[in-house]
Amino acid sequence: VETILESKTKSVVIGPDRPLVIIGERINPTGRKQLAAEMAAGNYDRVRADAIAQVEAGAHMLDVNAGIPMADEPAILAEAIKIVQSVVDVPISIDSSVVAALEAGLSVVEGKPLVNSVTGEEERLESVLPLIKKHGAAVIGISNDETGISHEPDVRFAVAKKIVDAALDFGIPRADVLIDPLVMPAGAVPGAGWATMQVTRRIREELGVNTVCGASNVSFGLPGRGSLNATFLAMMIANGLTAAITNPNELEIKRAIMAADVYMGHDENCVAWITATRVSESEGDRGGDRVSRRQRREARRARREKLDG
Amino acid sequence: VETILESKTKSVVIGPDRPLVIIGERINPTGRKQLAAEMAAGNYDRVRADAIAQVEAGAHMLDVNAGIPMADEPAILAEAIKIVQSVVDVPISIDSSVVAALEAGLSVVEGKPLVNSVTGEEERLESVLPLIKKHGAAVIGISNDETGISHEPDVRFAVAKKIVDAALDFGIPRADVLIDPLVMPAGAVPGAGWATMQVTRRIREELGVNTVCGASNVSFGLPGRGSLNATFLAMMIANGLTAAITNPNELEIKRAIMAADVYMGHDENCVAWITATRVSESEGDRGGDRVSRRQRREARRARREKLDG
Repeated sequence: VETILESKTKSVVIGPDRPLVIIGERINPTGRKQLAAEMAAGNYDRVRADAIAQVEAGAHMLDVNAGIPMADEPAILAEAIKIVQSVVDVPISIDSSVVAALEAGLSVVEGKPLVNSVTGEEERLESVLPLIKKHGAAVIGISNDETGISHEPDVRFAVAKKIVDAALDFGIPRADVLIDPLVMPAGAVPGAGWATMQVTRRIREELGVNTVCGASNVSFGLPGRGSLNATFLAMMIANGLTAAITNPNELEIKRAIMAADVYMGHDENCVAWITATRVSESEGDRGGDRVSRRQRREARRARREKLDG
Repeated sequence: VETILESKTKSVVIGPDRPLVIIGERINPTGRKQLAAEMAAGNYDRVRADAIAQVEAGAHMLDVNAGIPMADEPAILAEAIKIVQSVVDVPISIDSSVVAALEAGLSVVEGKPLVNSVTGEEERLESVLPLIKKHGAAVIGISNDETGISHEPDVRFAVAKKIVDAALDFGIPRADVLIDPLVMPAGAVPGAGWATMQVTRRIREELGVNTVCGASNVSFGLPGRGSLNATFLAMMIANGLTAAITNPNELEIKRAIMAADVYMGHDENCVAWITATRVSESEGDRGGDRVSRRQRREARRARREKLDG
C-alpha cells in the first residue's frame, strides 16, 4: 500500500517499493532550549534555517513540533508551519500531542499532511481520527494505549491493529495510516531493538500498512549515537520500515539509509549512492566514512565506466 | 542450534542467541598480489601480522586461504594454518575449493575447524562431506549447484536444504552445517540484497541452521565500500545472520556489528559498545563516527553511572 503526502506543489509517496522516506526531525523544541526560547518569543529564524538545511540534506518531508511548556502551542505550531511552508516545498508532519494544536496546524497546512500522532487510547482515537477524516490527512498511530507501553511484541501488534481498525471505522483508508512500532532505548530495555523489528515486520505482513519510526530514542543515554541510530535504521529497513523521522544532516544516518535503499532495490543502478559518495568525496567530507585511497580509486573507476557506457 | 568451533584451547559458539561471530577474512591472497607472492615464496610475515591484527581488532576466528595460481595450494595452506596457530589462539576456517588443500589443512589444524566450503553440486558434496565427518569438523554450505547461482530465492533455499540433508545423510549433525546464502554484488544485481536477506531468514526459520556470509562481495565495483558493507551486515543480522567473514579492522564494519549486537540483545548492558566507544574516543579515533562533544559528554556520564552503580 502507498501513502501519498502533499505540499503545495509536490507529492511524496511512502511505500514498500519506494526509497525510505526521510522526515526531518529537527524542528522540535524538545531538548533544544534555545530553539524553544526563540519560538516562544516569535523568532523563527532557526526554524527557517533548519527547514532549509534538512531539505538540502535530503529530507523528503519535515516534522514540525512546537511543544514548549507554558507557551501557546496551537498558535506557535500554526505559525511555524506557515514559516516552513514559506521557505521549502515539502509535505509537513504536524507533530503534537495536543488536539487543539493539531487542529491549528491542520487549518494552515497546505496540501495533504501527516499528523503525528494518535495512540491506541480510546479517548485519543475518538478525538484525533475525526480530524484526520475531516481534513483528508494521513496519521501516525503509535502502538501504546491506556495500559502504557508494552514490552510484549504481541501486545504492541494488537494495539497497532486496534488503531488501524479504528481508522477504518472512521472512514480513513488503510493507506493513510502509518504505524510507529515505538522504539525503546536499547540501553534501558535489552533486546528491545529485535522485538521492535519483529513487530515492524508483522505490521507490514499482516496489517499491510506502512511503518515509520523515530530513530533517536533507541540510542538514548548511550555514546556513539550516530552509529547506533544509523545501524538501527538499516536493521528496521531490512524488516520493512518505510519511513523514518530522523536527522538527515547526520552523515552516518544518511549514508546508512542510502545504502539500505541500494540493498532493497530502491536505488536503480545505484545512481543515488554513487552520486552522493562522489559529492562527499569531492568536498573532502570524510567524517562519517573513512574513504580510503582504494575506495576513491574505485569511485573514479565507477564514474569513468558510467561515462564510457 | 549452536555451532561450536575450537582452537587448541579456546572455543567459539555460533548461534542465534550469541553475538555475531566475526571470522577475519584478510589471510587470503585473492586480490592481494604482494601477499600471494610472499606466500608462494614461503614468506609468512604478513600472514603472521594479519592474524595478530585481526584478532586484536575483534575477530573470533580466522579464515585462511592459500588460493594462489600455479602454486602448491595444499602445502601452502597447511603451512599458513600452522603459522597462524603459532601466533593466535582462535578457531580456524580452512578456505579452499580444492579438496586436497582442505585435506592438507585438516591434517594440521588444531581443535575443531570450520571448512569453507562445499557447494550443492553432487560431486562436491560427495568429496567434501566425508572429510568433514572424518575430522569432526563443521562446514559452510554455499547455496549454488550445477545450475550455477540462481537469482531466485526459492532456488537458493532449495539448494541450502539439499546441502543440509546431504550432510545429515553423511552423519554430520545439523549444528555443524552453516549456510552461506551467497551475496551477489548489489551494483550488478538490483534487489539482490533484499533477496539474500529473505533467504537468510528462511534458512534460520525453516532449516534451523546457522548462517554465515562474506560481506565484501556485495559492494563490489561501488564506491564507499566500508559503509555499504557495514550497512549490509546490519541488515543481514536483522534477518538472523549468525556469523560473517569480514574485516574487523574496518572501523565502520566493526561498529555496525557491535551496534547490531546491542539491538539483538546480545550485548548485556551495552558493556561492549560503551567500552569500545570509550576506547575509540580516548584514542582520538573519530574516523568512522562523528563523535560530537555531546556524545562524549554522554559517554562520560554513562561511565560515571556505571562506576557509581
